Amino acid sequence: MLTLDKVYQAAFVLKDVIRETALTPSPKLNPTCKNVYLKTENLQLTGSFKVRGAGYMISQLSAEEKAKGVIACSAGNHAQGVALAAAKYGIRSVICLPEGAPISKVEATKSYGAEVVMVKGVYDDAYKHALKLRDEMGYTFVHPFNDDDVIAGQGTVGLELLNQCASLDAVVVPVGGGGLISGIAFVIKHLAPHIKVYGVQAAGAPSMANSVRDGKIERLPSVSTIADGIAVKEPGDNTFALCSKYVDEIVTVTEDEISTAILALVEQHKMIAEGAGAVSVAAVMFDKLPLKDKNVACVISGGNIDVTILSRVMERGLLKSGRTCNLCIELMDKPGQLRDVSEIIAELGGNVISVHHERASETKDINGCFLRLVLETRNYEHIEHITDALKRAGFRLV
Amino acid sequence: MLTLDKVYQAAFVLKDVIRETALTPSPKLNPTCKNVYLKTENLQLTGSFKVRGAGYMISQLSAEEKAKGVIACSAGNHAQGVALAAAKYGIRSVICLPEGAPISKVEATKSYGAEVVMVKGVYDDAYKHALKLRDEMGYTFVHPFNDDDVIAGQGTVGLELLNQCASLDAVVVPVGGGGLISGIAFVIKHLAPHIKVYGVQAAGAPSMANSVRDGKIERLPSVSTIADGIAVKEPGDNTFALCSKYVDEIVTVTEDEISTAILALVEQHKMIAEGAGAVSVAAVMFDKLPLKDKNVACVISGGNIDVTILSRVMERGLLKSGRTCNLCIELMDKPGQLRDVSEIIAELGGNVISVHHERASETKDINGCFLRLVLETRNYEHIEHITDALKRAGFRLV
Repeated sequence: MLTLDKVYQAAFVLKDVIRETALTPSPKLNPTCKNVYLKTENLQLTGSFKVRGAGYMISQLSAEEKAKGVIACSAGNHAQGVALAAAKYGIRSVICLPEGAPISKVEATKSYGAEVVMVKGVYDDAYKHALKLRDEMGYTFVHPFNDDDVIAGQGTVGLELLNQCASLDAVVVPVGGGGLISGIAFVIKHLAPHIKVYGVQAAGAPSMANSVRDGKIERLPSVSTIADGIAVKEPGDNTFALCSKYVDEIVTVTEDEISTAILALVEQHKMIAEGAGAVSVAAVMFDKLPLKDKNVACVISGGNIDVTILSRVMERGLLKSGRTCNLCIELMDKPGQLRDVSEIIAELGGNVISVHHERASETKDINGCFLRLVLETRNYEHIEHITDALKRAGFRLV
Repeated sequence: MLTLDKVYQAAFVLKDVIRETALTPSPKLNPTCKNVYLKTENLQLTGSFKVRGAGYMISQLSAEEKAKGVIACSAGNHAQGVALAAAKYGIRSVICLPEGAPISKVEATKSYGAEVVMVKGVYDDAYKHALKLRDEMGYTFVHPFNDDDVIAGQGTVGLELLNQCASLDAVVVPVGGGGLISGIAFVIKHLAPHIKVYGVQAAGAPSMANSVRDGKIERLPSVSTIADGIAVKEPGDNTFALCSKYVDEIVTVTEDEISTAILALVEQHKMIAEGAGAVSVAAVMFDKLPLKDKNVACVISGGNIDVTILSRVMERGLLKSGRTCNLCIELMDKPGQLRDVSEIIAELGGNVISVHHERASETKDINGCFLRLVLETRNYEHIEHITDALKRAGFRLV
């Protein structure tokens, strides 16, 4: 059973396993709040809070269990958390990963000392294989969220928050399986019940939000979000019960809101969050919660975003803020047209980063063609200057 | 004259103006070193160390000078440092910026409370205009580096380093005009002269490296680097003298090395550095200095990188690590070819992110055409699998 004593014990045993992460003021994130602070678990060892739960759970194993080692199934933060925690206790860890797992995560997991088993198929296949190996080899299975010791470990984030800021009014926490928010909410509601605890899920994976709303565990047929760390189809019974009892409200955010939050952290804090880690920031930025004039702590749960995805998120952010723009210009297929367009753009300080010229049958004229350009621009106003100048010169933008 | 007393005084007066930045262990950056630490001035207020020098310099102004206000010329970190420092002392600041300055920097400077004057032309024009305004209005000019008080302020980074790590063997510092390294080297060589102080410049802007090597101040005709924060054509006489006397060695790093360093900080530390800030990290990663078995502190001087540039740096990093690849395939212009190519790529787990199909006269065959693809891939091995399979199926890659 989850108890406060367990969380205190976890805080004690984790002292040499984890790092107490900073609580960083973020005054620009939402000026209607009194203060916003970021609890930077993205800067935790392994890049996420997961090492807390895994570390405490492993610390509680018997000598015999430790001698046999642990097994987990994950393509992400949990894998790295278990691997590092096991290494710190000097025990064996085996991680089952589905074949298609990003190479970067596989390498990171190995780098913390785990044995990695690649399993043909998807996550569920890897999960089944992990249970089979557990039964065959006597490993202890480390559940990513639905385990009291794991939840107690995650609850240490709640203790740190209370230590780091005496005047908190609300804590906003990303929710996937619900282990992190269960631990935090349990601690907060026992020690400082006036503090609100809010959960945030991606709109494309609202399993806990739906389940709590409907009062019963529901399984989503599919999930889709860039916040892959919280793309969980079904909450655990344990975390479902804890969230139902202790969490004040669970809201959702869209993919665009998540991307904008990631970009804001990059620009304002020089800090990388993964999609799952940034949903809390997105909820605060986009006023999803009653936080006016409140002292708010936003838990950034992790920072392990694939560089490919980060690059895409930033590209979307650039487009959305007018710092790149895509133009499609209808040209007559005659000499000098490209030069004229280039001249107008150059004069106005636009920077052409990609050109694509195509004949296309849907133009009015058999000689017509399309020029597709990607420009670096300063802002929407700058884009308007350029498009206006092109139109004045007789070009048709499509 | 620069004295240790000034630096101590600066540390005292800056207590309420700046933030003591963390010294973060970075064990993976170069395993041949005993320990590598990152001095995270990219997480300083305004995103760079510049607020230290500006803050101390402004604190030393007379009441009369404070009443009139300060002026500076910069399109970057110095502008933001002066703006915030002036705001903290409640005095007026005017910043002259060349017209083409990135909108993001202009907005950031304004957001700290400065009056921004956009000047037609380039940096030198803005500089002249700032001096003119100084003479007309009685503002005090805040030099970005060649001023004793400014250097004393930057030297507080050296004091913090000595406090934060007792066993340092070497400090590696980015060098532009030389203000930061002059302050740090002055402090280190007076208080702990056994510690080596190394400077790093971009290969495309080695003004201080050349000047110190040749024993006289040299002006570069032009500079070109993504490390725009240290793209300085000519060192100051003051910083030149201090670097000549106190700095052990100045080395240079290439653009690719800088990009790789930025990417490593993103992936390993979830942290953004600007090009100028990452040259020190690049020098350590790429073994430019005799650091084997040493305890090394790497100063990351700033994090204000334009998102456009960051996105480009990451794209280059993805290409260089085999996580994206550009393919150009010669096709016969007949039905089914695109399907065949797509099928092969999909089967091997490649993710097509861009397609460009063009007829081109340089193919052998009048019916030939080129298919240009950008793929997301796992690594170089994965790319080889895909290209091998395409070749086996009879496609020619160009």
